[in-house]
This record gives sequence, structure tokens and C-alpha cells, in this order.
Amino acid sequence: MSDIQYHLPEGFLFTTVEAAVKKPGRKDIAIIYSTVSAVASGVFTSNVVKAAPVLLDMQRIKGGKGRAIVANSGNANACTGKRGFKDAQKMSLAASIMLECPETEVFVASTGVIGAPLPIDRMFSIISAVKTIGDSTLLDAARAIMTTDSFPKIASAQINIGGKTATIAAIAKGAGMICPNMATMLCFVLTDAAITKDALDEALIAANDNSFNRITVDGDMSTNDTVLVLANGLAANKPISSGTKAFNMFKNALSDVLMSLAEMIVKDGEGATKVMKVLVKGAQSVDDATIFARAVANSLLVKTAVYGCDANWGRVIAACGRAGVDFDPYAVDIFFGSVRVVKNGLTTNKDAEAAQQLKAGTVTITINFRLGKASAQVLSCDLTEEYIKINADYRT
Amino acid sequence: MSDIQYHLPEGFLFTTVEAAVKKPGRKDIAIIYSTVSAVASGVFTSNVVKAAPVLLDMQRIKGGKGRAIVANSGNANACTGKRGFKDAQKMSLAASIMLECPETEVFVASTGVIGAPLPIDRMFSIISAVKTIGDSTLLDAARAIMTTDSFPKIASAQINIGGKTATIAAIAKGAGMICPNMATMLCFVLTDAAITKDALDEALIAANDNSFNRITVDGDMSTNDTVLVLANGLAANKPISSGTKAFNMFKNALSDVLMSLAEMIVKDGEGATKVMKVLVKGAQSVDDATIFARAVANSLLVKTAVYGCDANWGRVIAACGRAGVDFDPYAVDIFFGSVRVVKNGLTTNKDAEAAQQLKAGTVTITINFRLGKASAQVLSCDLTEEYIKINADYRT
Repeated sequence: MSDIQYHLPEGFLFTTVEAAVKKPGRKDIAIIYSTVSAVASGVFTSNVVKAAPVLLDMQRIKGGKGRAIVANSGNANACTGKRGFKDAQKMSLAASIMLECPETEVFVASTGVIGAPLPIDRMFSIISAVKTIGDSTLLDAARAIMTTDSFPKIASAQINIGGKTATIAAIAKGAGMICPNMATMLCFVLTDAAITKDALDEALIAANDNSFNRITVDGDMSTNDTVLVLANGLAANKPISSGTKAFNMFKNALSDVLMSLAEMIVKDGEGATKVMKVLVKGAQSVDDATIFARAVANSLLVKTAVYGCDANWGRVIAACGRAGVDFDPYAVDIFFGSVRVVKNGLTTNKDAEAAQQLKAGTVTITINFRLGKASAQVLSCDLTEEYIKINADYRT
Repeated sequence: MSDIQYHLPEGFLFTTVEAAVKKPGRKDIAIIYSTVSAVASGVFTSNVVKAAPVLLDMQRIKGGKGRAIVANSGNANACTGKRGFKDAQKMSLAASIMLECPETEVFVASTGVIGAPLPIDRMFSIISAVKTIGDSTLLDAARAIMTTDSFPKIASAQINIGGKTATIAAIAKGAGMICPNMATMLCFVLTDAAITKDALDEALIAANDNSFNRITVDGDMSTNDTVLVLANGLAANKPISSGTKAFNMFKNALSDVLMSLAEMIVKDGEGATKVMKVLVKGAQSVDDATIFARAVANSLLVKTAVYGCDANWGRVIAACGRAGVDFDPYAVDIFFGSVRVVKNGLTTNKDAEAAQQLKAGTVTITINFRLGKASAQVLSCDLTEEYIKINADYRT
């Protein structure tokens, strides 16, 4: 993967270290540092059960400023009570000592097993003793936060704002327990664009909603989902504010970056052999369209049929039928790829032809309800024996 | 399976025939006949997409009377439009010709592949040409309606009403696509109890809600789910009416019979190696308790952990956390079998001991939220590679 190309924004430095959080043998801590204080924004899991680092970050994000992110893989520091919260604070303290920056501007993220305490004393010693920042790359950081991921996930984009080039680069981890809203998923977005806090928050919410909230692997939602953005302004553009042309450019670029990462996460879905795009058209509202798309995208029977290259549209329409939104089954059209398998709710007798479409690496299932004009798309993947193996043996 | 014991109510006769609905080689049509007209009650799928036989039965059940049930496996007659509805009518007509009874008192059920038309001409000829009713047993009928089931499902109970013995016997099919509410599931209940239509409806709704609506295999819901009851009164008891002691006896016996069948369905869950009971206690309402229990019972991560004998309570509490009902994570206790793995939201460090409990054929996961006094239980099963194999290859 050494040939992965990406643009890097100005003023961000990285280091990765081994702390044997779960077991020795790999760098499992990533530290991201902005040479100047950055505007910070974040979105977090909506699970009632929130991991300690999420609770800490949710407090700190209110300050609107960020200087660093310290993240570990191997242990989620979730369901760890008061001790877990103190451990998250200690992680940030260690990074603030190492980086000589305010502890309140350090964000923390953890991913891995739930319910076990962090080996915080070892982590604290190792992090606070780091002598150099900048000896690793953003790609190294992407590798350090991987758990069941099979490849590091990185994406970037550049925009021109009044003659100044601003860069957005982001890394993510996530392969399982992926579900709306968001995923077990960490994503760190770094940009040198100058932007106001309000505009950054607005852009992040929109971009997240169009990307990570539109993917699903297994319907489960994590306790640790976190997307953090640091915008340090070193591109020296005129600060972007909401409602401007520059804002739309920034928001669209951010959406593209997050969508690229979201697609990588689905592609890397545990055990997945193919990406499944569920596109719902002709719904009465975007909410309805999303409900239908998620029901299909999460259906085990649809996911296994896609895996088996079976154009089993009966499972698709049955999943829609239990989604909780009314419709006329005999107005529905269903396509697998470009082949219409159902017209007005009845078979077109093209299942064999449609099955060929299911051999592709990305399969699109389109459902048109002919009720209205709203549409929505959800990305998912097929369900395979390998998913079972990975998740039956995860902790052993 | 010839040593299966069951009680049979008076006045019911059976026949099974081969019509090669999907392919030749087995008896795939069951006909159940009451020698006298019976009080009839039914509950049906809440899927928006309802199969033709369901639509027909929903009309006929309003008449409150039933004489016969004709059911086929191999084809669901779902998503088959006007033709499908006519085909369901033809099935009932064939049975009414054979049995010399009113067509409006014949109920129809189908299970199998969605979207393909029934081979109705062959079915009509074969059914209407049957010369003898009574040459098969109720167990033969249970076998004829099997699809991916690995064993026939039959249960019975007897009650004494004022010195008269009334018998309830029922058969069911279902192994996949099992989900609240109900399952891909056909269930035919036969009883010689005398009971009013209102009382029978009330008893069936209660018994169904306590049994079939409390099981899940894969979160999918079928287009064909049907529970039909015929009560022919030949036990000659004083007709049971609502609110009486006899009514409660009948309702409880019916619940027991349906619960036995529900447990068999879960045990026979496609690819399942063990039954998973999710018991939620201490919720603020039964609705909340049921929401939590279903979220855990349907979680792929929990189901794979149970398969892998991993007491991964983090997945259990994370599933609760995304169920949509608020709670305090640090008030929660979780048990695997008799081993408390979580106390007040924190690990008791007994995961290894708890993993031993997961080696049993039936695993109970108990979650106490300590919010109130309501409880609910949902039955499910583990998720295995075999489920994927069965459902990836179902139509091939």
C-alpha cells in the first residue's frame, strides 16, 4: 500500500507508537498534531452507551478548539465507568505533556474490545516519553487505528478559495459493527482551510449525514463512533463562513472525502465479497426512502442472496413490506443492476439475466415505489460465512 | 420421528398428496378437514406485501366459519398479482369439490419461493381428484408443509371443561425468515373445544402474542405468515365464552401449544446450533422491555458471539444502547446463564466462566435495567456459517 497517493494539508504532524494495548507487535497508538491551534468540530455515536473517550470529547468539543488527537486501537475503553473516563483523561494528559499543548485541546479516541480497562500506566509512560512528532505519516496513523480492517483508509481533496489552495485529508477505520447512524468507526479529518466554527459544524453535519450515516454492514452501532475535524487555517484563505460559495465548495469537498472513506469501509465490511448499493426512488419523502433503503440494506436474506448471486427480488420486496411504511406492492419496480426483475410488482422473468449482474464487485439494487419524487441510497455489503467466522472468534 | 406422541381432537381428518409444486418426489400438499363446520379464527402477517392466500383467508375469516384448510409447500404464491389471487381461489375450489363443502369455508396457505406462479392446473386436478380423506395423519400434514425445516413440528394439549375433555393439536412450519411479528410460518390449530367466535379470537391473539410474536431468527418477516384455528365443538363442552374460568384454561393451553411450536421453530432456525433466550427485566414498560429484547435477539454480533461461545457482553449492552430507549448504562446487570458478567455496568471479570454457559443447547441472556418492574422475553438462535450457506443457495 506504499503507493497510496494523498494530499496533505499544511501544519499537521504525526507519530505512531507501540503500546501493546491488546497485544504487542504493532504500532497501536496514533498521535496527530497541528502546529497551530485549530478550529475543532465533531460528531459522535448516538448509542445510549457511549465510551469514555466519546464522553470526554463531547465535553471538549464545546470549546471549539483542537491541537491534537490521540487514538488507540485494541481496546474501546467503553463500559469502563469512572475509571475509563479518568483513563481517557490520562491519555490526553500524556499527549499534552509530550506535545506541550493545553490538555483541553487534545481529543481522544479508542476502538477495540468493550469492557476491559486500558493498560493506562504503560500507555501513559510510552506516550508522554515520545521525543519526536513528525516521524510518521498520515498513512501510518491510518494503520495504527485499524482493528479488523484489512486495509488502511485515507482520502483527500483540494479546493481553491480565492487563489489559495486548501487541502482536506482524512483517515478512517471501520469494518464491522457498521450501521446507521455512523459506524464503529473513527474518522479524523485534517484541513488547513480557514473556516469559522459555525460553518465547520454545519459542513460536518451535512457531510456526515451524506456519507457515514448512509452505510451499514450488520445493523449494529458502536459505542465509540467518532468523527473529528481540525481546521488550522494555514491555507491562509479568507475564513469560510456559512452560506457562501466557498462554504459550498468546502462542504462538497468534505462530503466527497467522507463518502470515499464510507465506501472503503463498506468494501472492507467483515467478510464482504461485494458492495451492495440500495437505491430507493419514488418515495413520498426522503425519510421514507431511507427507511426502505435501510430495511433492504440490513436484510440478512437480501445480503445472503447477493452473496449467492441469486436475484431474489422476493426478499427485497418482503424487506420493504416490513419496514413500517405503506405502499402498493403492485406499483413497485425493482432492478438488479440494469435488469428490471419486477414491473408493477410482478416478475419480468429475468432472474437469470439479473443473476449475472450480481457477479460484479458492486451491485446496485434499485426499488421504485412510484409514490412520489423522493429518493435515498444506502451502501451495504453481502453477508458471508467469513463474517460469521470473524465475529464468532473476535476475542479469542 | 414415528414415535412422536400427540393427542388428536375429535372430528378432524387429513390427507396429503404430491403435486410437484416445486419439484417432484414428496407430498407437498396437506388437506385438513373437519367433519362438521367449525368456528374459525386467524392471525396473519403484518407485512405490507401479503401473499394471495393471506388476502383470501383474511376475507373468509370474517365469516367466522371453517371446514377445511388446503396448504402447499414449495411456492408462496406471493407477489403474483391477480393471477395469484385467482390461483388461491382455485386451490380452495379444488378442495371444496373434493370435500363437498362450501368453498367459502376452505382456507388456503402457501409457503416457499416468492414471485413465481403456482402450477395451478396440475394442483387443481390432483386435489379435486382425491378420493379419500383420512388416509394421512396430522404428522403427515406437518411434513407436507415443511420447506427448509429439518423436522416436522407438532404439539398438543388437553383440558377438562366441566367433565368433558377438549383437545388442542397444532402443526407448524418455519425455520427461516423468522421475525417478530410472527415468522415465515404457517400454523394450523385444531380443537374439538366448543367456543364462541369472540372468545376464540381473543384467545388466539393473546396466545400468538406470547409465542410466535416473541421469536426471531433473522429479523425478516414473511409475506405469508398465517395462524389458523378451527374449533369444531365435538368435545361437547359447554361453549366457552370470554372472561370465564374455562376461557382462561383454554387460552393458557393454546398459549402452551403455540409456545411449544415457537420453540421448535427457533430450535430449527436455519443453521442454528443453539437456542438463545433473551430475558429483559427491570424495564419501565413491557413495550420497552420487548424493544430491548428484540434488539439483542436480532443483533448479528450477539448471535455470532453466542455461536462462538464468547460471553461478549459488550455487544449485548451496545445492542441495547441502539434500541432507541434511554437507560443508565451503569445501572445494568447482565447474566449469561447463571453467571453475572456485568454488575452496575461494569465487568465482573467472569467472562471465562460465562463462556462455559454458552456451550449449552439453550443459552439465556438476562439483562436487568433496574428502571422499573416490566419484563419481556424473546427467543432467538445463534447465527452460523450454515445459515449463510442455506440462504445464499436457497433457490439454486
